[in-house]
Amino acid sequence: MLTDSNETPGALRQRIRSGEWTANTSGLAPGFVQCNLVVLPAAQGADFLRFCQSNPRPCPLLACSASPGDTGLARLGDIDLRTDLPSYRVFRDGALSEERSDIRDLWQDDFMAFALGCSFSFEEALLGAGLEVRNVTEGVNVPMYRTNIPCEPAGPFRGDMVVSMRPFTAKDAIRAVQVCTRFPAVHGAPIHLGDPSQIGIADLARPDFGDAVNLHAGELPVFWACGVTPQVALENAALPLAITHSPGCMLVTDLRNAELAML
Amino acid sequence: MLTDSNETPGALRQRIRSGEWTANTSGLAPGFVQCNLVVLPAAQGADFLRFCQSNPRPCPLLACSASPGDTGLARLGDIDLRTDLPSYRVFRDGALSEERSDIRDLWQDDFMAFALGCSFSFEEALLGAGLEVRNVTEGVNVPMYRTNIPCEPAGPFRGDMVVSMRPFTAKDAIRAVQVCTRFPAVHGAPIHLGDPSQIGIADLARPDFGDAVNLHAGELPVFWACGVTPQVALENAALPLAITHSPGCMLVTDLRNAELAML
Repeated sequence: MLTDSNETPGALRQRIRSGEWTANTSGLAPGFVQCNLVVLPAAQGADFLRFCQSNPRPCPLLACSASPGDTGLARLGDIDLRTDLPSYRVFRDGALSEERSDIRDLWQDDFMAFALGCSFSFEEALLGAGLEVRNVTEGVNVPMYRTNIPCEPAGPFRGDMVVSMRPFTAKDAIRAVQVCTRFPAVHGAPIHLGDPSQIGIADLARPDFGDAVNLHAGELPVFWACGVTPQVALENAALPLAITHSPGCMLVTDLRNAELAML
Repeated sequence: MLTDSNETPGALRQRIRSGEWTANTSGLAPGFVQCNLVVLPAAQGADFLRFCQSNPRPCPLLACSASPGDTGLARLGDIDLRTDLPSYRVFRDGALSEERSDIRDLWQDDFMAFALGCSFSFEEALLGAGLEVRNVTEGVNVPMYRTNIPCEPAGPFRGDMVVSMRPFTAKDAIRAVQVCTRFPAVHGAPIHLGDPSQIGIADLARPDFGDAVNLHAGELPVFWACGVTPQVALENAALPLAITHSPGCMLVTDLRNAELAML
């Protein structure tokens, strides 16, 4: 699992493309944007685009296919969408059907791809500001929870917002709002802090996705809109075939996190 | 108490100077910066300047006298510091000695004046952003509390920070952090939110200054560094003679709140 921290995104994608790297991309190619990926037939493309546009906090769209069948996303680098993610999830009729490391033989001429901002970018900004990110400290996946906050539906895409949670002291929570406000393209500022029950979360110790983390005395849970939201909407849409990244196994791009910063 | 909401700051200062207006300046000359005022002998001027520099959140210095004895603050408008505040507080040996509407006969050739940003400016920004400011809604003075957060001392000036409190839902508290971050010259972002006991406040219903306001179900108390802090430091310094504005009776300036906005 040794990696070269100076590896370029292109070199890393090459190792992923060749099948050498099939694991989590967390911490790899530091400084560069990693993306959530959604691939679906062009017939549903306009609805999904509208879903992202209507729900920009959980679904910050960074790039989408210029035309159906395109296997690249030129804006984000020299990318082959069929091979350049370490792991894909294949959904059939809305249910997870399989996980695999390339989708060459599933690719369709009518596929459109959508790359959405991911929390790795703002976590890097939080760490850079000297804040502690608990899931990083504890070496686990960030805890994620289903909420009672409805997304604005678009065509078959609908569902409640999923949020990620990181604990902070009040002072650091305020600083986290400032730091993340600079990054609207990767979920932006938190959407809630404090009492989890106000957004429909019953028990922080039992996340719906990811792993629980420890809240220390005097800390507030701070919640961000999460990129699992579009995956839930995709499941609800129950399309015959749709494909996403596997959690943590993201699309690594040539875009720098710093390029996404407002101000 | 009828006032002309289109009145210029200069016209309002003229009415104050003539003794026609001797009350609170809250809501007057909307859009223009109002300031906390501290006047003290030049011998303590450097220490007080350093106190402000070391504690910028509670003591955001907007202007100070160019030389001892100056009765104006040209940067803030055509101001006569001896007459242009509706009410002054006179402190002798650190204790409030009297309140009066002009200080012409107390003025000394060695006096220096310090004008500090005030919460009226960021309250205007919060209201402009569509947020409810509870003390405005309830028509009372904002509640203020002594905390256990020590200021950095400078010469004789020392003391704990005083904070003001406004309740918000979590969502609005996050928005308030964003809005107020743009205004570092008028206290800036909140310094705490949530549990008051973490900063040494025992009972929100019993403010040390101002009036209590209602917290609605599900709201968080949000705390800002407050301009009463330098007044407390001034009392602790126990100078033979020092003068401030009376609470709510501020120095109205020609500076626009919008001019103070970062970004």
